[in-house]
Amino acid sequence: MHVDSEEARGLRVPQRIAIIGRGLIGGSFEKAALRAGYDVRCLHHGDPGFEDAEMVIVCLPPDAIVPWVRSRCQSFAKGAVVVDAAGTKAAIMAEMEGVPKDGWTFVGGHPMAGREVSGYENSIANLFDGASMLLVPEGDGPVPGFLEPFFKSLGFGRVVVTTADRHDEMIAFTSQLCHVIATAYARDPLVPESQGFTSGSYADMTRIATQDPAIWSELFRENGKALVEVVDRFVARIGEFRAALAAGDRSAIAEIIKSGADAKRAYEYQKGSQL
Amino acid sequence: MHVDSEEARGLRVPQRIAIIGRGLIGGSFEKAALRAGYDVRCLHHGDPGFEDAEMVIVCLPPDAIVPWVRSRCQSFAKGAVVVDAAGTKAAIMAEMEGVPKDGWTFVGGHPMAGREVSGYENSIANLFDGASMLLVPEGDGPVPGFLEPFFKSLGFGRVVVTTADRHDEMIAFTSQLCHVIATAYARDPLVPESQGFTSGSYADMTRIATQDPAIWSELFRENGKALVEVVDRFVARIGEFRAALAAGDRSAIAEIIKSGADAKRAYEYQKGSQL
Repeated sequence: MHVDSEEARGLRVPQRIAIIGRGLIGGSFEKAALRAGYDVRCLHHGDPGFEDAEMVIVCLPPDAIVPWVRSRCQSFAKGAVVVDAAGTKAAIMAEMEGVPKDGWTFVGGHPMAGREVSGYENSIANLFDGASMLLVPEGDGPVPGFLEPFFKSLGFGRVVVTTADRHDEMIAFTSQLCHVIATAYARDPLVPESQGFTSGSYADMTRIATQDPAIWSELFRENGKALVEVVDRFVARIGEFRAALAAGDRSAIAEIIKSGADAKRAYEYQKGSQL
Repeated sequence: MHVDSEEARGLRVPQRIAIIGRGLIGGSFEKAALRAGYDVRCLHHGDPGFEDAEMVIVCLPPDAIVPWVRSRCQSFAKGAVVVDAAGTKAAIMAEMEGVPKDGWTFVGGHPMAGREVSGYENSIANLFDGASMLLVPEGDGPVPGFLEPFFKSLGFGRVVVTTADRHDEMIAFTSQLCHVIATAYARDPLVPESQGFTSGSYADMTRIATQDPAIWSELFRENGKALVEVVDRFVARIGEFRAALAAGDRSAIAEIIKSGADAKRAYEYQKGSQL
């Protein structure tokens, strides 16, 4: 692995990894890295032990990330890459611009995986298997070449390099709106009476309603503008559906269902053809 | 099994089963019944072969069920029980009242299971394993005692006897609203750009968007009033969430998330304590 020419091309994959934060994501990064054979430490917020790491993955709550990095900005190893794991990127990238980087590099990161339970005790080695790892470089620069093989070695199926704004716009729709919907659904007064009347659709719809209020309120607040836009589009489409339902217009209802089914099938087809 | 006293108590489970309709649900009933050792036939809409069945399960599209039963109402065996499998009950129960029943019984049925694919070729023996089977008797009468052991022998985890109106009110929320949401979500213009930005939340949210327009438009139309009510409640809660997002009010956002998470956890706790 440690061939000079690979290092010169930026392809030498770091072997000493420090994970900051012993929650679900930090613990899962640790277990995935152990599974892949890395030299890995998973540290609490205040622990030493990251100073000689070639890669530092910061898995703290979103508002704790920049303060942690800023206060250690003189302590990272020369050539180290620091990656975060927060679910929004524009706010963190903007704050990170002002953090002095003496011989180390910051790359925004977002592992697109989670569980409906939290904490280190629920972390698992295969959490990231097949998932997307989203990366946002500082400025317009490329990301180090070894990041793709590194994250794929942890199980990720795909590494996507994008910008902070594009990330936040897409995530508002693909992830945050799902969480808003799950919460709004689960607050219906019929939930306590639902036993025996539910099936897979209900289980899927409510699975992520147990999201952590502290973490998700911060992610939603940071990305409020983009999120409100996708919420408004969604509510407009629900309104269109409601009008057809209230009118009892079966063919209008069928047309709406068909357009959603077509969009979902086109997405699955596109996904299949990219594998 | 064929003990007289059991028969007298209505507990003798029928052994000759006819399934009408060779789609996903009919085929899955056939395979589950074969797995359980019954004498079962799975028939097309126009086929003979149901006349000596002790139980007939009608798995046709919702608007084809009553016409099929009515036109065969002189042909069922004495003592036969006819059960349908449609996703709404009030409309079918009302129509079935006018069908003469000479020595046979009709019971409304709704197996709470499905797949995002349709057709006999996608039917599976374990589709109903652990699911609820909802039953609606005609009038205020009880359902035959053997129905619970019969459906449990096909894999169902639970048999719930309810009224048509209660069924339709609950299903509007627990199932139909999920389908409305999935369709509305999947029609967003960002769907074709979502590759690489999605995870489990997106997969869960869009899974049932491939629902069959012909079947679901009829179910939605039949239950339009109850469905519009739950849609309106849902939209009001989304609106409350949107206001907190637009105001950037992190503590209001966290409160909303917490109330949904609490409701979901209470549901899971209640479910666990009923097992």
